[in-house]
Amino acid sequence: MRKARADRFLDSVDASVSSTFRSLASMILGDGALSAREKALIALACSVALRCEDCTRRHMEQARALGATREEMLEAAAIASLIRMGSGLNTAAVILEELDDSAAR
Amino acid sequence: MRKARADRFLDSVDASVSSTFRSLASMILGDGALSAREKALIALACSVALRCEDCTRRHMEQARALGATREEMLEAAAIASLIRMGSGLNTAAVILEELDDSAAR
Amino acid sequence: MRKARADRFLDSVDASVSSTFRSLASMILGDGALSAREKALIALACSVALRCEDCTRRHMEQARALGATREEMLEAAAIASLIRMGSGLNTAAVILEELDDSAAR
Amino acid sequence: MRKARADRFLDSVDASVSSTFRSLASMILGDGALSAREKALIALACSVALRCEDCTRRHMEQARALGATREEMLEAAAIASLIRMGSGLNTAAVILEELDDSAAR
Amino acid sequence: MRKARADRFLDSVDASVSSTFRSLASMILGDGALSAREKALIALACSVALRCEDCTRRHMEQARALGATREEMLEAAAIASLIRMGSGLNTAAVILEELDDSAAR
Amino acid sequence: MRKARADRFLDSVDASVSSTFRSLASMILGDGALSAREKALIALACSVALRCEDCTRRHMEQARALGATREEMLEAAAIASLIRMGSGLNTAAVILEELDDSAAR
Repeated sequence: MRKARADRFLDSVDASVSSTFRSLASMILGDGALSAREKALIALACSVALRCEDCTRRHMEQARALGATREEMLEAAAIASLIRMGSGLNTAAVILEELDDSAAR
Repeated sequence: MRKARADRFLDSVDASVSSTFRSLASMILGDGALSAREKALIALACSVALRCEDCTRRHMEQARALGATREEMLEAAAIASLIRMGSGLNTAAVILEELDDSAAR
Repeated sequence: MRKARADRFLDSVDASVSSTFRSLASMILGDGALSAREKALIALACSVALRCEDCTRRHMEQARALGATREEMLEAAAIASLIRMGSGLNTAAVILEELDDSAAR
Repeated sequence: MRKARADRFLDSVDASVSSTFRSLASMILGDGALSAREKALIALACSVALRCEDCTRRHMEQARALGATREEMLEAAAIASLIRMGSGLNTAAVILEELDDSAAR
Repeated sequence: MRKARADRFLDSVDASVSSTFRSLASMILGDGALSAREKALIALACSVALRCEDCTRRHMEQARALGATREEMLEAAAIASLIRMGSGLNTAAVILEELDDSAAR
Repeated sequence: MRKARADRFLDSVDASVSSTFRSLASMILGDGALSAREKALIALACSVALRCEDCTRRHMEQARALGATREEMLEAAAIASLIRMGSGLNTAAVILEELDDSAAR
């Protein structure tokens, strides 16, 4: 596999910054109340939500290495897309609030 | 109406910056190949797409002042939300590309 | 035309999910209070606002197929870019609010 | 609980749009290869990744109703924040690519 | 000053995660090739670029504590807003690329 | 250097729009309370924060032309990535606010 771009950046900055970021990532993505496998699927979905293709590739590889199936990964990605739409609907509701406000004046 | 936050910022920076930004906005939002009314609806939809509540309020007022109806505004906002989901689906497709790549290796 | 990435994803997930998403998109983008042509221009602008290149290509093709001109498409895209800046100006105003708050203390 | 803003918007648009969106959401968030409980945690993380407070509240309630614990929810939210940083690091790597390019010229 | 929301979250998660994140932030924001004062202004601008109001408040306080002036802070925030528009213009250019492609076919 | 995409778009729209945008950019990025060099580094960091690769390339070239060093550019980019995470942590705190609210009921 080609070296991920984020890794290339981390290898170029101050060594204490990279090692601290990598520790942080290991802590957040390692087994805890949620398993590393569940966390990898969450990381994959967040990568899609943020529309980061490099991240999607990385966390997908991680998820597969931990046993996630194709179906689980596709379902996680669909959730990410849905939340993108849902978040827009919440902002769209501002229109109704303004219409009410002006009707009440 | 309370003064919009963007206006408050513009009133506080260098006067040439504010007047240039305001000229730019007038040019981009004024009648052209598209009418100012169509443009206000597009601006409203983009405000929802970007999830900016202040912008949504501002461009909604503008759209109404130019004769846009409630139904037109709600339809524009629904499009914005839909594109948020569609953009996520394009990133989600990276998963399939990676699965193909690894199957081909 | 190459198959759009979003379509590839939809073709890979559960068939009821894809057909429901496609129905939703047809309803939201079809003729209503706004014409399908006006909606395609709004969808194009939202694609630019969200910085989704795949979406920009798709909705631009749709807009052209429905008769939108080059000038109309460029104007819609300029609005999207403007709203991106305007949304930043609203957040920038937080600086002034904080300066006021601390002056008032 | 107060009515969520997204629901208010959906209740105001064409009934076929709302019912189709709600069907889509039910399909994507219901039991599948992943359980509804796992999906609610993924939806919660995506809500944080997208910085949507209304969404965070909604999917958190859903996650709790399906038995997710405080620790699981906090872990999911931490992943979302981490991926936000990781996605920035991938873009930051562009700087190194450009430095290489110019050194090679 | 009220406790920042990010701090409240960090105080609630695993202590090793919070202390590692805080170390990372100190390293990245402390004196280096750029001074802590220059970095605080950069952090402020990035907060505006990302439209995070809590972040804007926090990094503005930091910038002021390190001696940044009102004018410097407003200039940094204006840059953030400008880059938001510039980034949209890059995506808008996709329209021209597609028009060329179809003219060439 | 190949022509930047944003420039190609600007060269295709109404000449008064392009020249006004370019004036605005010159004013915002020119010497002021902050030097053009400091501003170029801020613009670079905002480009990374917004994950715009074209912008990162452009503002990096600008920063280098004004004398910014590799170390300064990498430090600015690391700040951008950090603020992306910090902004997520502020949204994550919504979970704690909701847990408190429901405990208080």
